[in-house]
Amino acid sequence: MLTDIEIAQGCKMLPITEIAKQIGIGEEELLPYGRFKAKLEDGVYERLSHNKDGKLVLVTAINPTPAGEGKTTTTIGLGQAMNKIGKKAIIALREPSLGPVFGVKGGAAGGGYAQVVPMEDINLHFTGDMHAITAANNLLCAVLDNHLQQGNPIGIDPRRILFKRVMDMNDRALREIIVGLGGKPNGVPREDGFTITVASEIMAILCLSLNLADLKRRLGDILVAYTYSNTPVYCRDLKVAGAMAALLKDALKPNLVQTLENTPALMHGGPFANIAHGCNSVRATRLGLKLADYCITEAGFGSDLGAEKFLDIKCPTAGLTPSAIVIVATARALKYNGGVPKALTGEENLSALSAGMENLRAHVENMKKYGVPVVVAINRFASDTEAELKLIEDACLALGAEFALSEVFMKGGDGALTLAQKVCEACEKPNHFAPLYETDLPVKDKIEIIAKNIYGAKGVSYSSAAEKAIKDIEALGKSSLRICIAKTQYSLSDNPALLCRPTGFELSVREVKLSAGAGFIVVITGDIMTMPGLPKVPAACNIDVDDNGNITGLF
Amino acid sequence: MLTDIEIAQGCKMLPITEIAKQIGIGEEELLPYGRFKAKLEDGVYERLSHNKDGKLVLVTAINPTPAGEGKTTTTIGLGQAMNKIGKKAIIALREPSLGPVFGVKGGAAGGGYAQVVPMEDINLHFTGDMHAITAANNLLCAVLDNHLQQGNPIGIDPRRILFKRVMDMNDRALREIIVGLGGKPNGVPREDGFTITVASEIMAILCLSLNLADLKRRLGDILVAYTYSNTPVYCRDLKVAGAMAALLKDALKPNLVQTLENTPALMHGGPFANIAHGCNSVRATRLGLKLADYCITEAGFGSDLGAEKFLDIKCPTAGLTPSAIVIVATARALKYNGGVPKALTGEENLSALSAGMENLRAHVENMKKYGVPVVVAINRFASDTEAELKLIEDACLALGAEFALSEVFMKGGDGALTLAQKVCEACEKPNHFAPLYETDLPVKDKIEIIAKNIYGAKGVSYSSAAEKAIKDIEALGKSSLRICIAKTQYSLSDNPALLCRPTGFELSVREVKLSAGAGFIVVITGDIMTMPGLPKVPAACNIDVDDNGNITGLF
Repeated sequence: MLTDIEIAQGCKMLPITEIAKQIGIGEEELLPYGRFKAKLEDGVYERLSHNKDGKLVLVTAINPTPAGEGKTTTTIGLGQAMNKIGKKAIIALREPSLGPVFGVKGGAAGGGYAQVVPMEDINLHFTGDMHAITAANNLLCAVLDNHLQQGNPIGIDPRRILFKRVMDMNDRALREIIVGLGGKPNGVPREDGFTITVASEIMAILCLSLNLADLKRRLGDILVAYTYSNTPVYCRDLKVAGAMAALLKDALKPNLVQTLENTPALMHGGPFANIAHGCNSVRATRLGLKLADYCITEAGFGSDLGAEKFLDIKCPTAGLTPSAIVIVATARALKYNGGVPKALTGEENLSALSAGMENLRAHVENMKKYGVPVVVAINRFASDTEAELKLIEDACLALGAEFALSEVFMKGGDGALTLAQKVCEACEKPNHFAPLYETDLPVKDKIEIIAKNIYGAKGVSYSSAAEKAIKDIEALGKSSLRICIAKTQYSLSDNPALLCRPTGFELSVREVKLSAGAGFIVVITGDIMTMPGLPKVPAACNIDVDDNGNITGLF
Repeated sequence: MLTDIEIAQGCKMLPITEIAKQIGIGEEELLPYGRFKAKLEDGVYERLSHNKDGKLVLVTAINPTPAGEGKTTTTIGLGQAMNKIGKKAIIALREPSLGPVFGVKGGAAGGGYAQVVPMEDINLHFTGDMHAITAANNLLCAVLDNHLQQGNPIGIDPRRILFKRVMDMNDRALREIIVGLGGKPNGVPREDGFTITVASEIMAILCLSLNLADLKRRLGDILVAYTYSNTPVYCRDLKVAGAMAALLKDALKPNLVQTLENTPALMHGGPFANIAHGCNSVRATRLGLKLADYCITEAGFGSDLGAEKFLDIKCPTAGLTPSAIVIVATARALKYNGGVPKALTGEENLSALSAGMENLRAHVENMKKYGVPVVVAINRFASDTEAELKLIEDACLALGAEFALSEVFMKGGDGALTLAQKVCEACEKPNHFAPLYETDLPVKDKIEIIAKNIYGAKGVSYSSAAEKAIKDIEALGKSSLRICIAKTQYSLSDNPALLCRPTGFELSVREVKLSAGAGFIVVITGDIMTMPGLPKVPAACNIDVDDNGNITGLF
């Protein structure tokens, strides 16, 4: 089989103006970036604001395993399939970060015959959104350190600076650093560190902002430090939110690309799904709902992280109601959850599969708690046996979830015609969507609701630092914000080693932080890495470009 | 008078496709970035490669003073004026860096009625070239530190890493840092530091590369470190030049914009004019010469830094021959050179002007050493008196240089019709262009030729570190590279306090570095700042964007 990049490069892309025309967008509403990417002007949403919204379909997954699930690929393939069965559909995705592209994970534009293109551009600089976020973030940091340097009139405590510099790179050497060395001209020495750009609060803000005014307000609300006298210092106190918003003006406009089958796709924003909410921008999703009858979107990691945040943070913030939830799983990953080592997941093993089904069952039950119809999509591998698929199907039907296979990696949209049909049917079923918790509950109550209902924990314990942080948040009058739990993606619990469906555990909260601009309280369990490292042989070492500009080695 | 940004926002821009059409470029050769910026495909140069080159006009200046010279403004205004007198002209400029935009200097898109537009975009992210250079630079650094982390098979000495991370920001706290703290997972601790992006060797490389193959070769040639056994480590040894070139693939394509009068302008690349060569890209200049009868370009700082490097590095590297050199000066700046404090430069003072003329005289005499006709352009201020202007004109004519006033800041192209005429005439005069030195001379001989002929030094002294570095360069077989002297821009000497035309001084070389990828030897005199800091009130604090996306406060 061809590699992803070979398939992508062999695809017949339409000019982006043509893709835009398909969804009723004229050239005057389009800001082209080359011939196959564009940003959409703010006027498009305003023009369509009185139109009825399409149906919103969320694609999520079981807990990720080394055996692979293919959530983004399924999302893209489902969009392609929707159009094949005559539905007007658009896809809304997160945009990739350079760090993983050069590290170990590769890009994030789908795979096989379900990709968004031009995949090289999308995986490299795309339309510059990540760079704009990096610049806005680091401008705030430079102005903050300059405040210390210029006599520190606000009295910022250099030991209590909460906002870090970012780089869109996997660069572990920048995790913990000391800045400001070399004497008086070079700033005030202090401990600092970089995170990867997608972990910046500014990424979360960009993705939750309704418009430029909302963006600017949220930027101003970022809590950046405390003073020596314990007063909070917000970004607005440094008078830099305007310049940051100017840097982000174009980044706030959703990007339009296409799939291998010329399905329109919005790709916009891509926050982490642990310390942030893990979904593409509110603006892209809301626009998608105006532009098509179905908007297919996804959220990061498994449903315990990405979908929970989509449903409890993004939807209520943006006034969205999902019409159906698709949970992607593979037989291999379920067998892995049932105790089979990765190397053997390609062999039939009904008892392991049956045991591992508990993981999928948890995700289905969790999603049903939100009152939205659920469809399970099994991303089919050649090694899957009929008996295995039958076992999964029977279990899903018993749970009250629809079931369909997805073969989009090999077949593109044709590989998900049944899935598309079932999703359309699910969208017509009764829908009683409601987020899991009311915001006016105490912080700990909200955490406990998620921990018990989604993770299956028996309770929650807090470090003393977390206890203190919650009190601080209450004192700041911010306790009615939504909750964003940072937890390992590999387990429903906070212990990555506990596969399948752990029970009887206590969720242990190590740290609690305020993302006041994004509008949520980040609850950190375990060690959450916000600056990845490179592996022994970075993917970068296999990437090349020939004399004619053709790129190889991206995946 | 309106501010620069108000004038720019009031301008009637043509769609960039129209500007391209004016110079014979079709839409298929254009990569649009929005409606008013575009990159030009590589095929344009190839298509035109058999055409005769236009005339190349270099705009340079006297030593910069706080009184202001207006070199970029004059360059743009001259281009506008050339078209007004019926000549087919194009402008080739450097692109601005975000650092100064948010710091104290402001943007770099001209001023008054001689600007390139859209000035907000140009001064913010433009087409992403700076971000691409930042990413390529920092990818190399991440891979290098990862090499240390993963067992260091090459044996890189962490104390002898020569290549630094960059950020496109004025951020003094990053000048000297310690990275890799926090234990084994976080890398190998070492001293490090950031420079601003425009000071990256990759910026110089991008600006000197003829094509993608040349770029990749030069990236591979970057000297990044030495091993414990004193072996040089090049970028290619880390196997990352291919991925870096992939990141730079589009950044290598020249950008097309327009002036306030719709004159086509190429803006591409912008290296420092001290530790690098201070000119826009070779590709933009070569393309400009194919696209128009006159290509008006500039070089950084005064002629001792920017023009010298243009003539001794860029021209021979790219096979360019300048047809005329314009030296920009102001009466105020010459009076400042003649000992008048800045506050009083607006008052007539013929004796100070006469004394300060020595600075202009040195620049004229220096430029004439290259065998190219010289025109002096006086950027006129309202306070200039007729007697002062007459004094300057007489002195110029006595030197064998043409003279004309420039009033482009107030009048646009109409303010430089005579200047344009004189430049055209100069281009027809006999031309004996030759760089100042042969590359096969010993390193110290080449340095001495520049120091004596351009700076007016009586000799050159070297620190022991510089002596050793020259020996190392000779041992590496790199002594035939061209020379790039980093020196203060404020004086012809290496002492910023010595205005006018210092004599009898010795140039003292503190440090010598190899930019093996860029292809020159950097000779550092004095303290050269490669990471600026922010002032007490950063320009960023006055920048804002309203709810409709209109930016204010850029200048």
